[in-house]
Parts: sequence; C-alpha cells; structure tokens
Amino acid sequence: MCFPVTRRFHWERLEQFTEKLFEKAGLPKQDAKTVAESLVEANLRGIDSHGVVRTGIYMQRIEAGMISIHEEMEVNEDGPVILLDGKNHIGAVVGDKALQLAMDTTKKHGVSLVGVKGSNHFGTCAYFLQKALKEDLAMIILSNASQTMPPTGGIRPFIGTNPFSFAAPAGKHNDFILDMATSVVARGKIINAAQKGEKIPLTWAVDKFGNDTTDAEEALQGAVLPMAGPKGYALSMFIDILCGVLTGAGFGQYVNNMYENWKDPQNVGHFYIGINISKFMPMEQFKERMDQYFDEIKAEPKAPGTSEIYIPGELEFRCKEERRKKGIELPLKVEEELRNWGDHFGVDLDRALISIEEVVE
Amino acid sequence: MCFPVTRRFHWERLEQFTEKLFEKAGLPKQDAKTVAESLVEANLRGIDSHGVVRTGIYMQRIEAGMISIHEEMEVNEDGPVILLDGKNHIGAVVGDKALQLAMDTTKKHGVSLVGVKGSNHFGTCAYFLQKALKEDLAMIILSNASQTMPPTGGIRPFIGTNPFSFAAPAGKHNDFILDMATSVVARGKIINAAQKGEKIPLTWAVDKFGNDTTDAEEALQGAVLPMAGPKGYALSMFIDILCGVLTGAGFGQYVNNMYENWKDPQNVGHFYIGINISKFMPMEQFKERMDQYFDEIKAEPKAPGTSEIYIPGELEFRCKEERRKKGIELPLKVEEELRNWGDHFGVDLDRALISIEEVVE
Ligand SMILES: NC(=O)c1ccc[n+]([C@@H]2O[C@H](COP(=O)([O-])OP(=O)(O)OC[C@H]3O[C@@H](n4cnc5c(N)ncnc54)[C@H](O)[C@@H]3O)[C@@H](O)[C@H]2O)c1
Ligand SMILES: NC(=O)c1ccc[n+]([C@@H]2O[C@H](COP(=O)([O-])OP(=O)(O)OC[C@H]3O[C@@H](n4cnc5c(N)ncnc54)[C@H](O)[C@@H]3O)[C@@H](O)[C@H]2O)c1
Repeated sequence: MCFPVTRRFHWERLEQFTEKLFEKAGLPKQDAKTVAESLVEANLRGIDSHGVVRTGIYMQRIEAGMISIHEEMEVNEDGPVILLDGKNHIGAVVGDKALQLAMDTTKKHGVSLVGVKGSNHFGTCAYFLQKALKEDLAMIILSNASQTMPPTGGIRPFIGTNPFSFAAPAGKHNDFILDMATSVVARGKIINAAQKGEKIPLTWAVDKFGNDTTDAEEALQGAVLPMAGPKGYALSMFIDILCGVLTGAGFGQYVNNMYENWKDPQNVGHFYIGINISKFMPMEQFKERMDQYFDEIKAEPKAPGTSEIYIPGELEFRCKEERRKKGIELPLKVEEELRNWGDHFGVDLDRALISIEEVVE
Repeated sequence: MCFPVTRRFHWERLEQFTEKLFEKAGLPKQDAKTVAESLVEANLRGIDSHGVVRTGIYMQRIEAGMISIHEEMEVNEDGPVILLDGKNHIGAVVGDKALQLAMDTTKKHGVSLVGVKGSNHFGTCAYFLQKALKEDLAMIILSNASQTMPPTGGIRPFIGTNPFSFAAPAGKHNDFILDMATSVVARGKIINAAQKGEKIPLTWAVDKFGNDTTDAEEALQGAVLPMAGPKGYALSMFIDILCGVLTGAGFGQYVNNMYENWKDPQNVGHFYIGINISKFMPMEQFKERMDQYFDEIKAEPKAPGTSEIYIPGELEFRCKEERRKKGIELPLKVEEELRNWGDHFGVDLDRALISIEEVVE
C-alpha cells in the first residue's frame, strides 16, 4: 500500500502564516496573533484536533460575517465576580479577555469567577491555563459547546463535549494541566480520523440511529458518547449550567453549531474560577508539595507493559518539546485547506515548511 | 434458596437512634445530630454505601480517641478566601462548619473558596449541597480520601476515589445535584457487596496483584479503578491538589485510612467553591432557564429500553420520597452492628423499626 506523503511545518512560521490569514480576513493584528497562537499551541501539545485544522472554519465564519471584529466587549464587574459579554468576537480572543480579567481579579481578591456569554469556539482550555500558570495562579476553566452527545438514555446529540480543565503550578516538575472533553474522546479526534479515512474504536460514538459504529463519518452524523456513562453526562450538564444557564449564553440546543448554522452567532459560554494559591500557603511550599506528590506517584510500581506513570499534562509538555524541534506534521487535507486560504490571500504556506537542516534530532 | 430476612427502619427514628449513639460516645448533642443526619440522609437518597453502615467505624474511632471532640476549630479568613482547620473533629461536623462559612461568605462576596484541613471522612457531599440549595446558592464541593485507586499505569492504590460534586437550584423541577466518586463506582458499593456476599462486575476493581476481579473481598484488598481511565485519574488528582496539597491537609498516601490506621488522625481535606447566582442574573430567571433546560432534556427521544431520561440527582430525590414513606432497609450485618452498639450504650434499635401500619404505599 502506498501512503500519501505528509509534510512538517516549523511551529513559529506556521503561527506567522496563520496569523497573517486572520489579519487578511480582517482581525486586528493582536487578535489574529492570539487565535493563531492558540491553534498552533494545540498542535505543539499534540492536540491536533484543536490545532490549525480549525483555521478553515474560523476563516469561513469571519468571511461570512458570523464573527464580530470591532465591537467593544462588555465587562460587568462586582468585586471578585465578573460577567463578560464577548459580543460575538472570535472565541480565543474572548477567552483571552476572560483570562486577563480572571488573573487580575484573582490577584486582587484571592479568587475570581468570570462568566462569559456571547463567545465562540475558543479552542483548548490549556492555551489559557498556561498563561495563568506563568503568573503562579491555579485556575479552573470550563466551556460549553454545541450539541454532540446524547444524555444518558437518549439517542441523539443534546449536550456538548463541554471541556473541563484545571491547572496548578509545580516546582521542578512540569505544571499540572488537566484539560479534557467530557466525552470518551474529543469530537475533533473523530473529525481527524474522518479526514485521515481511519476507523474509530467501537466505544467512541453512535451513528444517527443510536447504533455503535467504527465509521468516523457515520459517527460525525451521530453522537459522541459521554465518558463514564451518567457521570460524564452529569459533568457535561454541570459545565453547561455554569457556562450557559448562569451567564446568559446558549445552553443545550442553543449553543449553535459553527459548522452547520450560518444564520446565528454561536453564543458559546465559558466559566473561569481563579484561585490565588498564596492566600492558602507560601508559593514555595505549595510547589514543594506538588513536586513531592508527583515524585511519589511517578515512583509507584508499574503495571506490566507500562514504562512510566505520567502526570496530567506531562505527555503534552513532552510533545511540545519534540515538535518545537522536529516540526508539526499536518495531514494533507489540512495542508491543502491552509494552502487554498494562503493562495486566496497571497500568503505563502511553503515558507512555513521545516527544512531538514532545521530539524533538531 | 433461602434469603435472610432484612428489616426496614423509619428514617426519623433511625436518625434519633444514631444520634443517641454518637452522644453516648461523647459528641456534643448538636454534633451528634449532624453526623446522624448526614448518614441517614445518605440512606434516604439511596447512597447506602455512605449511610448508617459507617456508624460503626465512626464510633470505633471516637472510642479509640482518634477523633477530637472539644477542641476549637480554627478559621483563617481573608475576604472571600477561607482556610479552616478542622482540628481533627468528626468529618460531617467539619464539613458542616465549612459549609456555613462558604454560605455566609458567598452571600457577602458573591463567591467563596473554603479550603479545609485536619478533617475526617465526611460522608456524601450531597448532604452539604442540599443545605446550600435551601439558600439558593450554587456550590462545588470536593473532598480527598484515603488511597484506593492506582494512577493510570500503576497497580496499587495511590489516590482516593475523591468525590466531585456540584449543585444548583431549579424552579419547578428538582434541583441539580451531581455527586460522584471519581472511581468507576464508590468504594462503599464494594464494601456493601462484600457485606452482602455479592459478586461485583469485572470492570470495578483489581485485586492486590493488579488482576481484574469479581470478588468483592479481593477487590477491597486491591484497588478500585478510576472512571474513564486517565481522565478519572486526572480528576482525582485535581481534587487532591485543591483539598490536600493546597490546604495543608494530607494528599496521596498522607490521607490516612480510617479502617487501618489507628495511630494517626486521617487529615482529610475538603474544598468548597460557593457561587452567588444572583450576581449573574435574577434568581427567578436562572430557575426558569434551569427548568427549560431540564424540560428539553427530558423530552429527548429515548433509547430502546429507556422509559425516562433523568437529571442528575433526580433518582436520589425519588428514592428519598419513597424511603421516607416505606422505610430504610438495612442489611443484616449493618443491623447487627448497630444493635451491638445500641446494647453497649443502652439505646434501643427496635424502636426505630418501621411498623406495617406506618408504611405508606
Ligand atoms: N472548545 C471546545 O468546545 C472543546 C470541546 C471539547 C474538547 N476541547 C479540547 O479538546 C482537548 C482534548 O480533549 P481530550 O479529552 O481528547 O484530551 P485527552 O483525552 O487527550 O487528555 C485528557 C487529559 O488526560 C491527561 N492524560 C491523558 N493520558 C494520560 C496518562 N496516561 N497519564 C496521565 N494523564 C493523562 C491529559 O494530559 C489531559 O489533561 C482539550 O484541550 C479540550 O480543551 C475543546
Ligand atoms: N467522603 C468520601 O471520601 C467519599 C468518597 C467517594 C464517594 N463519596 C460519596 O459517594 C457517593 C456515591 O458516589 P457514586 O459515584 O457511587 O454515585 P453514583 O454513581 O450513584 O451517582 C453519581 C452521579 O450520577 C448521577 N446519575 C446516576 N445515574 C444517572 C442517570 N441514569 N441519569 C442521570 N444522572 C445519573 C447521580 O444522580 C449522581 O449525581 C457520593 O455521594 C459521594 O459524595 C464519598
């Protein structure tokens, strides 16, 4: 059998390329940079389902006038509690604004709640969490998403794969980053499999009749399943309640699908809970305790076939290190899509290819 | 085959019985009431793993001097952030103190973080959540627990089945209560199966060698598995970081097992995040949105064999209604243990039995 040749891209130049596309589409330079950075960061961390594969749909929605570009976002602040209306700006930009508010407020009050309405798909939570970690803050970030999972006992999509995430800094170890969809797997992984023409495991999803399926295309017509049965369904609802019901954003069927609805804004909601560690104990002591915790877990006896026990986020930190050196490999379909946008706006994708001399082995 | 006859108890008199036992053991009347109420409430809601089955071990630890009774708890308050040192009081009492602090602070500041150290096993999170619901507050409650689950890739218990919980009020519907162990099932369900001499499903736990098992006794010697693989492992760690690493309580191996360690206090940690809904939108509007959300989910088409789609907490509300009318059935082993304690302290268990005339069908 003959496999198509995929190519590798240099993360920094891929980011510049993507940034230029968004600028050409009309985003202010700083906003274009934020979106590009969030997408390439996902690729670097190995979360390809939320990487530059999303450039196309974001561009299409901007071009179709489905995203606001210049309207002012609205901040409603009451001590440590903030409600942000993203006014339909692109998700990563709204998410970043929420993050800045959460960081400032957490430093000041020791804690913050930032509820967000009027947003769009904002990529991975980890992109924002990493900025909070740079300031030594712990944070929970939640987002709702358009309908992809049935409730327990249902058959068709009703809730989203609403991600749950939390990060806290460590000392000598990599920081703790838990960032997960509440589905068995992120829907993006099924999109990826579909794009690669690959089969998916039987437990991931059902087709549109509610039957189990290994066909990625059929799964995309059907529904992704919640993780851990009713527990994942309940977690997804909890996230929808905070992100959607409480903030005034969409919830359930009112979070519009960015691929299918070309009439209405998505009205995604997010929810940030900032935690000022130093209000509980000195930062150094906290980091030492984190390091001790990680050391002790990693030293546990391993199951047959396991060479190492990982801390959540660790695999992604390693992947990032490697991909910074060796480049980011993109499926042909994604490369083609980016190339088309590049051609359309006169931005050269080939400049972003990594050369053999650049690859650090 | 011949089954042993189990008996049913009236919830209120069972609570009075349990309260008296704890009083006899030396707890102040109010504290005895709190513990008894939290246990019987778990039975009422159908969470028998955390009901009066725990009376024996709590009593033993009090008798053995492993629980403080009269020491003053220590509150460290800094605006919306509070650190509570439970000073080794019994878990439900420490948990209740934390709840009161969280409620007061959330009303005042719009949000609260209450970290707790120096506590003990506090039963179900839902017991406390229901009190927050009475005040129309939304709340997240977390607790760590002693080692029962291996990390992903490990074989022996390292982290606890650390529960995650969240509640928010609805209008005409029952309130939303998500309250779950981060394991496939709560360890208490395995304890229950062992007490009833029943087998457990193969996916629940491993024996002490890391092998899958259906034997409840062997599972108790081994390890309960996290829900959803690495995602459950990561969730359990997240809870341990907030409840243990951050508060100064035990974490990982330093949360002592109440059944096995008769030398040291448990040093369990909890973490409460209070959310003042009315800072985001008027309460009536929030409740209407919750009702709409629930109505829409419950109206979804159902999978073959499913007669109804449930909201998290709903099954427990129904169970409570039923058991208030029909009584709480206790396994013989549990009844026997209670009876022994009753005999020891001169408290009559039979008074708590429900009579046929009392049962409301
Ligand atoms: N914006 C949206 O609408 C949306 C929706 C869903 C998901 N997402 C994003 O999708 C991304 C991927 O989600 P996912 O659930 O597929 O992630 P995943 O399953 O790859 O990983 C989930 C978590 O588990 C950890 N993990 C995985 N294997 C581990 C191991 N062996 N040991 C220790 N930890 C381990 C990871 O570090 C990560 O924190 C996330 O970044 C999420 O934010 C976004
Ligand atoms: N204190 C401790 O150390 C400790 C440790 C672990 C667990 N616990 C307690 O154990 C208790 C039981 O935990 P569990 O994980 O076994 O609970 P569970 O699996 O019975 O239920 C988990 C959650 O899922 C919901 N749910 C279940 N089936 C559903 C369905 N079909 N539709 C909608 N929702 C559904 C329930 O309402 C509940 O909120 C909890 O109260 C927890 O606080 C305490």
